[in-house]
Amino acid sequence: MLQENLQNLLTRAQASQQLALSFLFSSMEIVRPLRKLVHALQLERGSNSLLLVDPQNILYASRVDAYRKQFADDQMRFLQAVEVWQAQMEQHALPSSVYIKLAHFLETLNHLVNLREQIDTREIKTDQAIDDFSSIIASALAFVFELAEQALDADIARGMLALFNFMQAKELAGQERALGVVVLGSRARTQSAQLTAALKTRIDQQWQAFQLVRSFATDAQIAQLEQLKQQPYRAHLEQWRDRVSASTHNSAHNSLALAEGWFDLMTQRIDGFQALEDDLISYLQIICAKKMAADEAFGSASTTSNHLSGLDSQLKQQVDERVMRVRGVSRLLLEQLHEQAVQLGAVEAELMLAKQTLLDRRFIERAKALLMIKKHITEEQAHQFMRNQAMKSGLKMVDLAKQLLQQLV
Amino acid sequence: MLQENLQNLLTRAQASQQLALSFLFSSMEIVRPLRKLVHALQLERGSNSLLLVDPQNILYASRVDAYRKQFADDQMRFLQAVEVWQAQMEQHALPSSVYIKLAHFLETLNHLVNLREQIDTREIKTDQAIDDFSSIIASALAFVFELAEQALDADIARGMLALFNFMQAKELAGQERALGVVVLGSRARTQSAQLTAALKTRIDQQWQAFQLVRSFATDAQIAQLEQLKQQPYRAHLEQWRDRVSASTHNSAHNSLALAEGWFDLMTQRIDGFQALEDDLISYLQIICAKKMAADEAFGSASTTSNHLSGLDSQLKQQVDERVMRVRGVSRLLLEQLHEQAVQLGAVEAELMLAKQTLLDRRFIERAKALLMIKKHITEEQAHQFMRNQAMKSGLKMVDLAKQLLQQLV
Repeated sequence: MLQENLQNLLTRAQASQQLALSFLFSSMEIVRPLRKLVHALQLERGSNSLLLVDPQNILYASRVDAYRKQFADDQMRFLQAVEVWQAQMEQHALPSSVYIKLAHFLETLNHLVNLREQIDTREIKTDQAIDDFSSIIASALAFVFELAEQALDADIARGMLALFNFMQAKELAGQERALGVVVLGSRARTQSAQLTAALKTRIDQQWQAFQLVRSFATDAQIAQLEQLKQQPYRAHLEQWRDRVSASTHNSAHNSLALAEGWFDLMTQRIDGFQALEDDLISYLQIICAKKMAADEAFGSASTTSNHLSGLDSQLKQQVDERVMRVRGVSRLLLEQLHEQAVQLGAVEAELMLAKQTLLDRRFIERAKALLMIKKHITEEQAHQFMRNQAMKSGLKMVDLAKQLLQQLV
Repeated sequence: MLQENLQNLLTRAQASQQLALSFLFSSMEIVRPLRKLVHALQLERGSNSLLLVDPQNILYASRVDAYRKQFADDQMRFLQAVEVWQAQMEQHALPSSVYIKLAHFLETLNHLVNLREQIDTREIKTDQAIDDFSSIIASALAFVFELAEQALDADIARGMLALFNFMQAKELAGQERALGVVVLGSRARTQSAQLTAALKTRIDQQWQAFQLVRSFATDAQIAQLEQLKQQPYRAHLEQWRDRVSASTHNSAHNSLALAEGWFDLMTQRIDGFQALEDDLISYLQIICAKKMAADEAFGSASTTSNHLSGLDSQLKQQVDERVMRVRGVSRLLLEQLHEQAVQLGAVEAELMLAKQTLLDRRFIERAKALLMIKKHITEEQAHQFMRNQAMKSGLKMVDLAKQLLQQLV
């Protein structure tokens, strides 16, 4: 009975590994239209800002309209993809959190009707409109983050972390675009300190997100990231940022022309991010496909040695012996079983470090959300508060976040 | 299409929550016979030590034999439970790691035949025999740990952490029993420094494990733990430990009678742990059953208000409104959806803190295993090394472990 049970468990483990890989592969089929949808929302948010600082401008109104049409097409494609995905997921028992995060994003899309009405009637403040769009996009990114947490091996975890942080960086750039438009286009004499802080935070966090992309991306992806820096618009970025920053202190020279210039520059920049974003998604699908194929080929191959060329000879021999004992079990699985035995686990250590990065982020986000509610402050203020507290106490941000949450529970 | 997709996602989320709960419920049906199996192995290990320090003793040999028979019965029951569990898991797509950890434990059980032969022919050293038994038990506990990582809410995560750490504490007491027998029964003039360190580490880690049980157990369970301290044998425990400790320096008064006395006292102690261990398992099943029942009743109820008495009135109203919109969705789910929206998340924070505890443990274990392999040292030496390094550098154990692993990957 022991051998039978063992054999069954290994067969199941293999099937479940294939399922998990195909789940991630299929999920990228909704992340692709999702990222397009988010891109359209980011453009709509930016052009809303132009419209709201110059409410009578017909050109701006028609531009907003064009982005909404783009969004409608993208939403249709996205929802079709979700339908296909749901059918494919019939056989997978995914954690409910995956469904819930996606459901939550769909629910926030419902708010768009109302939000657009308020914009059309100019009933909403510019910064409120930006915040509302940002929170819809945040719930899309929360779904991608949830997918990252489902990663079952180090390569996939790293790929997901690179993708998520890149999407995050792009979104922060999108927020910077919308906020900058308000700063440069507004004719109010004094800009609010809150807006200044908001812009500063977006730039800071963009830099941090790109750093995280770097630490998880492949060399080829990092090279692609470097190429983005060679784009013509990049030469003017810092200059424009200085202009925006100066304008938060003195709005005497503000004009719609300036706001438009900023919008166009940032749009060039953000549009340029799209190719790498798509590549990061494709890369994940390629890893999944390779692992699935390797697994299947290995399971059915009569000789296994050529699949094991990457392993050192002692491990190879041990694995071969196991293959003879337990036929039909995948290479991935054998490596994992082997790893259990020797407990070296460089790969598992890497996965654990990736999971720690994800968990750290969750702690910081949770603590920030908690502060916002308890102290009735904005996200920037919560961020600033935590930064200051961390500096004062010499704690890392994540340890401070844990302390804050521990006081709560 | 949006509303349809949303409705489907919520239905799926609910089904997957029920599946996850029933998975944990069913898994406890194998943890129960597993813990009995481990108990039998612990007794066999302890009596092996008596036999190996006095190889000709017929009484000891027959005692070992009795424990092996007990083990054979327990193994049969355990394997039957695994078979039933595997059939139940047909519809669940569990992470492959769950199957792999269980498969790995079954594989280590194969080593028992060989190991017992070496004991019967007295070909194995006493400390080697103890280590080999301990590593079989460690792989059983690794499976329970893996189950803990699957916990999907804070109550279950806390319950699993209390159970796992209690099993861990009991196992450390079992190792202390076996090692103490060697110390007290051995006629060698000098005891090895390694044995002294091993005993000290077991006592230290027991204390730490019990502390963790306390921090995750319910008040009733903590009270049960306190009652264990009132047992008659407890009055003599420290005295006996001092005797063992003294004997590691001076073995002049060692005798088999002393070793037997120690074995009996520790056996009384460890046997006493069983009732609470079973209760911790039952408690988890009760939580799962309650959550499943609440979920189902809620899903089919026509009026929902009485189920929501625990929630504050504003939340209650919001939840009620949602129920009207999305009929048939469970309370648990609605709370989670709601939590997504307000992002307060005390419950999620608690789950995250529990997950952090699990991840911390993994880091420390991984780093220890790595040191053992790289430096060719024992577990105690690795433990001691890390403790000293942590003290010197002022780092927490877990942060030191992360550093060590980061240097590797």
